Amino acid sequence: MNEKIMAADNKVLKRLFNLDTNTYAEGAVDVKTKEMIGLACSMVLRCDDCVKYHLGKCQEVGLSNEEVYEVFAIANIIGGTIVIPHLRRAVEYWEELQNV
Amino acid sequence: MNEKIMAADNKVLKRLFNLDTNTYAEGAVDVKTKEMIGLACSMVLRCDDCVKYHLGKCQEVGLSNEEVYEVFAIANIIGGTIVIPHLRRAVEYWEELQNV
Amino acid sequence: MNEKIMAADNKVLKRLFNLDTNTYAEGAVDVKTKEMIGLACSMVLRCDDCVKYHLGKCQEVGLSNEEVYEVFAIANIIGGTIVIPHLRRAVEYWEELQNV
Amino acid sequence: MNEKIMAADNKVLKRLFNLDTNTYAEGAVDVKTKEMIGLACSMVLRCDDCVKYHLGKCQEVGLSNEEVYEVFAIANIIGGTIVIPHLRRAVEYWEELQNV
Amino acid sequence: MNEKIMAADNKVLKRLFNLDTNTYAEGAVDVKTKEMIGLACSMVLRCDDCVKYHLGKCQEVGLSNEEVYEVFAIANIIGGTIVIPHLRRAVEYWEELQNV
Amino acid sequence: MNEKIMAADNKVLKRLFNLDTNTYAEGAVDVKTKEMIGLACSMVLRCDDCVKYHLGKCQEVGLSNEEVYEVFAIANIIGGTIVIPHLRRAVEYWEELQNV
Repeated sequence: MNEKIMAADNKVLKRLFNLDTNTYAEGAVDVKTKEMIGLACSMVLRCDDCVKYHLGKCQEVGLSNEEVYEVFAIANIIGGTIVIPHLRRAVEYWEELQNV
Repeated sequence: MNEKIMAADNKVLKRLFNLDTNTYAEGAVDVKTKEMIGLACSMVLRCDDCVKYHLGKCQEVGLSNEEVYEVFAIANIIGGTIVIPHLRRAVEYWEELQNV
Repeated sequence: MNEKIMAADNKVLKRLFNLDTNTYAEGAVDVKTKEMIGLACSMVLRCDDCVKYHLGKCQEVGLSNEEVYEVFAIANIIGGTIVIPHLRRAVEYWEELQNV
Repeated sequence: MNEKIMAADNKVLKRLFNLDTNTYAEGAVDVKTKEMIGLACSMVLRCDDCVKYHLGKCQEVGLSNEEVYEVFAIANIIGGTIVIPHLRRAVEYWEELQNV
Repeated sequence: MNEKIMAADNKVLKRLFNLDTNTYAEGAVDVKTKEMIGLACSMVLRCDDCVKYHLGKCQEVGLSNEEVYEVFAIANIIGGTIVIPHLRRAVEYWEELQNV
Repeated sequence: MNEKIMAADNKVLKRLFNLDTNTYAEGAVDVKTKEMIGLACSMVLRCDDCVKYHLGKCQEVGLSNEEVYEVFAIANIIGGTIVIPHLRRAVEYWEELQNV
């Protein structure tokens, strides 16, 4: 689907996509921390697809189960019980990733 | 104001306040990272008071200017330009903290 | 300010304002319960002006301090700690109302 | 899924889940009213799973059709037409519950 | 589902549904512009069903591909990368509409 | 404040600010329509500073009072009564702009 969006050749969207990639690159803050931040923000904003994307990245950068759950905890305390259904789906997806 | 809320003796609110404190304690994820996560989540959820609170904590734990700005960048890319007015107030407050 | 909005004579806005009044009228659900619902929704949506409006109504219909705090608790558990700054302002306003 | 979350043994999440249960217990505000508040908040925050959960509870505590629709009405007036797709799913689920 | 909601005969909901229709009628602002506004608002509020509804209307009123993508771009810049999963689904649906 | 943010030399933020400017430039959709879209999105997302910014632009591009109120109406129907306090502040600011 990203290819189709790129093919539409809308400059603003193209640049936003590029910018998105740059945002999570190693910098003063390391990639692992940035992915934890991305995961927590996705969770408080209740975007399941975004949570899944960052969980995939969190596994790639080697986050432990305890670390992921502490990020989940921060997001659920900040965002409240309205976040719980997203937590359930996140836990389910995280388990899938561990079993691959 | 917290004292008045505590004095009202509502158990759910009291426990939520305690839980809030526990959430940011050192664990599998260190305090510095947790504060960056708290800052980013506060920013995407556009809560100026929460942003200020976490900026204060970020200074206490010794975050550099570059680190804080990278957290700001993540929050603004995730949350979009609607976050910019909150970024402005955050920058203003962060400068105040540096000059104390 | 409402008068100016009414004077602009936009039919959609006028009808929405009328509808808003009708929504909280006595019905299958009583006014007191409706005001508690309005208060909680205003709080989870983090609208200080709306919270103040419904707190005023809650006092008019005779809600006790314990009842108001239980509504606050539900809203803060559902909405999370991001709601706490709004809770503080709500508590402050509720105290003002009690002392009039 | 809750069992898996509990098994992960994250204290903050465990306590939040306990707190969630306590929040809706009988108190100064009765259970029926608390469930109406939970339903309305879930709807304005547009969480379908949360709406379903509270609709189940609303049926258990004996809410009438008229009462449920008045709660729906408050949530849709406060939250606007963006809530309508969630209203449709809520009505569908409420009908399922009535036919069991 | 709308018929069932209408059958429940809740006046507030009925009037809100009527008002919703009136809002997008030709006025000082033309229908085409109103539909672009409806589309953008649905996207920043991240309501897939609302986005689909307005995309259908946008096709009816003859919006070009370039116009639709510029509305997508505004919504994604304002709302941030959290909107991207909704953009993907919108692009997919827009393509379906073009191929009918 | 923007100067200070620029001075901090965070590339992601700088590019986002540039992108923001490009988004509202004349294209397949004209500037006037884009500003109406920006205004409506700012209102449903309940950002007073963003609403003010776009109201200023709306005046510059010559929007009539009737047009502005129809945009307000769309935003309030989509976003619900939670938007009303922001409508009040928008009307107040719009009047100030007219009297300059």
